[in-house]
Amino acid sequence: MFNKILIANRGEIAIRIMRACRELNVGSVAVYSEADEKSLYTNYADEKYLIGKADPKDSYLNIEKIIAVANESGAEAIHPGYGFLAENPQLAIEAQKNGISIIGPSPEIIESMGDKITAKKLMKKANVPVIEGTEKGISDVNEAKEIAAAIGYPVIIKASAGGGGIGMRAVYEENEMVRAMESTQELALKNFGDATVFIEKYLEKPRHIEFQILADKYGNTIHVADRECSIQRRHQKLIEEAPSPIMTEELRDKMGGSAVKAAEYIGYNSAGTVEFLYENDEYYFLEMNTRIQVEHPITEIITNIDLIKEQIKIASCEELYYSQSDVVVRGHAIECRINAEDPLADFIPTPGKITGYRSPGGPGVRLDSGIHTNYTIPPFYDSMISKLVANGRNRNEAINRMKRALSEYVILGVKTTIPFHKAIMKNQYFIDGHLHTHFIDEYRKGIEEEMIKVIAEDTERLNRLKSTFMPNHKIAAISAAVEYYMTQPRGKK
Amino acid sequence: MFNKILIANRGEIAIRIMRACRELNVGSVAVYSEADEKSLYTNYADEKYLIGKADPKDSYLNIEKIIAVANESGAEAIHPGYGFLAENPQLAIEAQKNGISIIGPSPEIIESMGDKITAKKLMKKANVPVIEGTEKGISDVNEAKEIAAAIGYPVIIKASAGGGGIGMRAVYEENEMVRAMESTQELALKNFGDATVFIEKYLEKPRHIEFQILADKYGNTIHVADRECSIQRRHQKLIEEAPSPIMTEELRDKMGGSAVKAAEYIGYNSAGTVEFLYENDEYYFLEMNTRIQVEHPITEIITNIDLIKEQIKIASCEELYYSQSDVVVRGHAIECRINAEDPLADFIPTPGKITGYRSPGGPGVRLDSGIHTNYTIPPFYDSMISKLVANGRNRNEAINRMKRALSEYVILGVKTTIPFHKAIMKNQYFIDGHLHTHFIDEYRKGIEEEMIKVIAEDTERLNRLKSTFMPNHKIAAISAAVEYYMTQPRGKK
Repeated sequence: MFNKILIANRGEIAIRIMRACRELNVGSVAVYSEADEKSLYTNYADEKYLIGKADPKDSYLNIEKIIAVANESGAEAIHPGYGFLAENPQLAIEAQKNGISIIGPSPEIIESMGDKITAKKLMKKANVPVIEGTEKGISDVNEAKEIAAAIGYPVIIKASAGGGGIGMRAVYEENEMVRAMESTQELALKNFGDATVFIEKYLEKPRHIEFQILADKYGNTIHVADRECSIQRRHQKLIEEAPSPIMTEELRDKMGGSAVKAAEYIGYNSAGTVEFLYENDEYYFLEMNTRIQVEHPITEIITNIDLIKEQIKIASCEELYYSQSDVVVRGHAIECRINAEDPLADFIPTPGKITGYRSPGGPGVRLDSGIHTNYTIPPFYDSMISKLVANGRNRNEAINRMKRALSEYVILGVKTTIPFHKAIMKNQYFIDGHLHTHFIDEYRKGIEEEMIKVIAEDTERLNRLKSTFMPNHKIAAISAAVEYYMTQPRGKK
Repeated sequence: MFNKILIANRGEIAIRIMRACRELNVGSVAVYSEADEKSLYTNYADEKYLIGKADPKDSYLNIEKIIAVANESGAEAIHPGYGFLAENPQLAIEAQKNGISIIGPSPEIIESMGDKITAKKLMKKANVPVIEGTEKGISDVNEAKEIAAAIGYPVIIKASAGGGGIGMRAVYEENEMVRAMESTQELALKNFGDATVFIEKYLEKPRHIEFQILADKYGNTIHVADRECSIQRRHQKLIEEAPSPIMTEELRDKMGGSAVKAAEYIGYNSAGTVEFLYENDEYYFLEMNTRIQVEHPITEIITNIDLIKEQIKIASCEELYYSQSDVVVRGHAIECRINAEDPLADFIPTPGKITGYRSPGGPGVRLDSGIHTNYTIPPFYDSMISKLVANGRNRNEAINRMKRALSEYVILGVKTTIPFHKAIMKNQYFIDGHLHTHFIDEYRKGIEEEMIKVIAEDTERLNRLKSTFMPNHKIAAISAAVEYYMTQPRGKK
């Protein structure tokens, strides 16, 4: 086992990884930008190093500085988390040169799965179902039209080097193609430095179902069950659950088998995720994420396997401790991503100062948070500030727990996605498990109306508490009021 | 299902029960004394009623007032929690008269199990192993000597109406008997209004192992696995874990079978606990608790059964949803009772104001807390302020999680048992699972030395943070410092 690990990330995932380090009795090294000096994670680590200005390219994307800190601190491994350098093969290459381990797969694998066209070709060879579409990158609009006509509309255009939903666009008719190609290519070039796109059949109302993979360096590969992540906005997940509401033992064996086949075919090792779209009893390979994912906690809860610790153990050349039959699914877990965003204004980020904070708790609740009272959310990074996870004996109990936990969670000072999640937990289509990736668009009106109601109720309560507990708006009074604010009388009296 | 439940209790257990109510969409009614107006639980409820002065006999033990509030609010049931009226048959009798359900067993059962001599007789009849001892209450010292001589020293004297470790005393030689009888009888009279005692064989280093019972009103009775609660001071539990480190499938079947037999013999319904002492491969009935117990969360975690919800469902005449084969143990859970007590001064209570508070979180951590920043712990009630539970795939992971969670948990302003728990989690005998009910006495010196070290380290860190973050000791700065204080660099740099 490593003596010391550098965490090349920030926020909640940095704390998550450091928690695993503490539990393994491994030292942790934080790197931070000028914007994160007072972040929790920076101070949670055993050592901390300032690596640059707030702009990610000066700090969290600066491979040279991160490697320098690893050398200086004597860290034997680097955990890149998700985002930033997590799927940048260059970090792995530079680390290798310096004799430092990367907690993740080899640069070659990152590269092959990072390019969606290459990935799709490989998956086809591995006999994993893939969706009909181009087999090479294209940039010519006429070629795009020909291909789309052959596949049949609707189609989707995707940036070949893309991720996180950036540079994706559905095209329903040929006359939309020129504009769609232009905008996708422009976004692709701007975000990924590569204008190449590809085209494939567009599924109208698919579910997003993914399989967690664990693979060691000795060829042992298992899947750690499934997650459904269909509740998305702009192709970014907001709510994830495990297992999928439609999962059966048979389907899990089948899809999980494909996921394992995919990982084995490319010689994968570490934790990874094979994502599928599912529609009309068919599933299609979407992409493989060669890193730990935001939504890993729901899998940890239903399987009782600590994925971060396993990832670290695998990187330190331990053999996989689990076989496929050790993966037993128990209960149901739901994760709500708490973002500093205004859910009523198209989820625009709302960085700023948190003036009050209170964690939910009790049975079946897990909180992975990187924030605290008086913390100022910087505008430079991802807007996700914490992850609230609720679990129960079944999906119904998990939903009721999540409702209850959301009612206890207090974040004052900035708008967050909490009202959105409260609205979804009350949505009958969600409760019935009728999910697909355009869920939010389809039910936008009802969700927004519910959000407006929720926000009005919360504001009314807060004002009432303010007049009682903080007549002079002193910090102490605010702090007390926040605590009381967790209580949500339902107006029964 | 009930529409509304009155919770005749306070603090963390009141919140725990109200959380179950919210998840079941059942209304909750809080009753509170003048000392608890600003408690979290009071404001968590849908309705709240002041019932009297701080002294428990004016409020939480005042049956008349509690029944009056139930009638006024329209509550259909009363949940008594643990302590206070939880094992007082009079509450159940008065509730019955008023057509209100009690979430717990009938008054007759409470009464028969509340008297330890009656309970022992019944268990003997039910063929549950009981320890050798008197079969009737005694008060004469010569009779006590005769009985002790017949059983063989050491023996233990116990108040017949006792509980919570009050009025228990081990006697090793005949010449200690006079003093032991006097002091036990005096305590018994003072605390329970009844000087009757009984005598039984004293086990030198037994384990405390108990079984959770669920029984409905239709004769369906199951056990929900075991807990070990051997880490006690003055016969009061401080740390509980599930399952017991020595438990095997065979032993669980055997002891669990006895527990079910005990409950069935007396026609028990509701949640309850059959406690055993275990020594040299033998187990003996100790007592039955006819209520929910403090340590119920560890059972909830390993079995994924919400005991409070089940208790409520049973009281509302639902049939038990689970059969014995549905009870499957997964992983290991440990609970540390966080008391406002000075663990270095014989655990004397330390009521007072909490000046800083931060919850631990992340994987495998559950916190049941009734407190918050700026909350003043009143001196009138039990000193337990929260329960920290950690779980893992196995006992080793649960211990490492607990260590990590304890390092994140910040309570400033009052002394707590946190340093004690940190010391125990590092204790090799504990780690090896060599537990018995005199563990703390046996290893007192090493535990205290470790506590002194832990407290010195924590104080040093706090002072360092104070000079950095709170030069003017303003509340805002303190609040920020508390957040940073959760970070526990281990001095590696």
